[in-house]
Amino acid sequence: MADTQTDNLEKLRDMIKDIDFCMLTTIDEQGDPHSRPMSSNGDIDLDGDLWFFTNASSHKVSEVEQSPKVNVSFADPENQRYVSVTGTAKLVRDQKKIEELWRPEFKMWFPEGKDDPNIALLRVSLEKGEYWDSP
Amino acid sequence: MADTQTDNLEKLRDMIKDIDFCMLTTIDEQGDPHSRPMSSNGDIDLDGDLWFFTNASSHKVSEVEQSPKVNVSFADPENQRYVSVTGTAKLVRDQKKIEELWRPEFKMWFPEGKDDPNIALLRVSLEKGEYWDSP
Repeated sequence: MADTQTDNLEKLRDMIKDIDFCMLTTIDEQGDPHSRPMSSNGDIDLDGDLWFFTNASSHKVSEVEQSPKVNVSFADPENQRYVSVTGTAKLVRDQKKIEELWRPEFKMWFPEGKDDPNIALLRVSLEKGEYWDSP
Repeated sequence: MADTQTDNLEKLRDMIKDIDFCMLTTIDEQGDPHSRPMSSNGDIDLDGDLWFFTNASSHKVSEVEQSPKVNVSFADPENQRYVSVTGTAKLVRDQKKIEELWRPEFKMWFPEGKDDPNIALLRVSLEKGEYWDSP
């Protein structure tokens, strides 16, 4: 596999567009890295931001308030494609952005839909990215 | 998806046994979490250790010498199974263990085979594990 350090946002966007789930790694209260799967929107926007839906009172939100640097990894084992991005995470409460990104399947996590009082967004602003693919 | 905090090593072993690649997240010199794909042996041994082949002089080795706490995540998107384990990583140079874990396909990374002078093992001793699977 070729490991490529890249500032090429287009390439990273292309690599992740068909990967629906990623792993978000935060640093917990003990300083230990801690991961969980997240539904990705399969997109890094033109500002270089990744957006995730989150419950505003979830554990990961308190983790990123204390340690905002996070890693997001995307794995497509079938095609041997892997992406790692490092960035800064921030809780964002923006109903307009929620409307823009909402998809009906998110009702699995937010049964009350996009008006759920606990719904919020986690914005990860990309700082470094790497990808691996096999020839 | 059900998120389950677990001390059940058997369950974690069962979840990862068919997942050939995982993402290893280390903390880099700037304190930022940093991931890369690793060939897993699809096994956590009976001592609760995960073993990876590594080049002894690779960047991740210097990262874990400075910050030994790491995360290893396993993703099987097709079956919606995800595992996150946190543990302590240590470089181990043990030719007997290398012989035991060596597989011919690792020649892709170590063309000189198991006698490559740079070959070493990274042992991750599990401390916390979580898994997610869909019903």
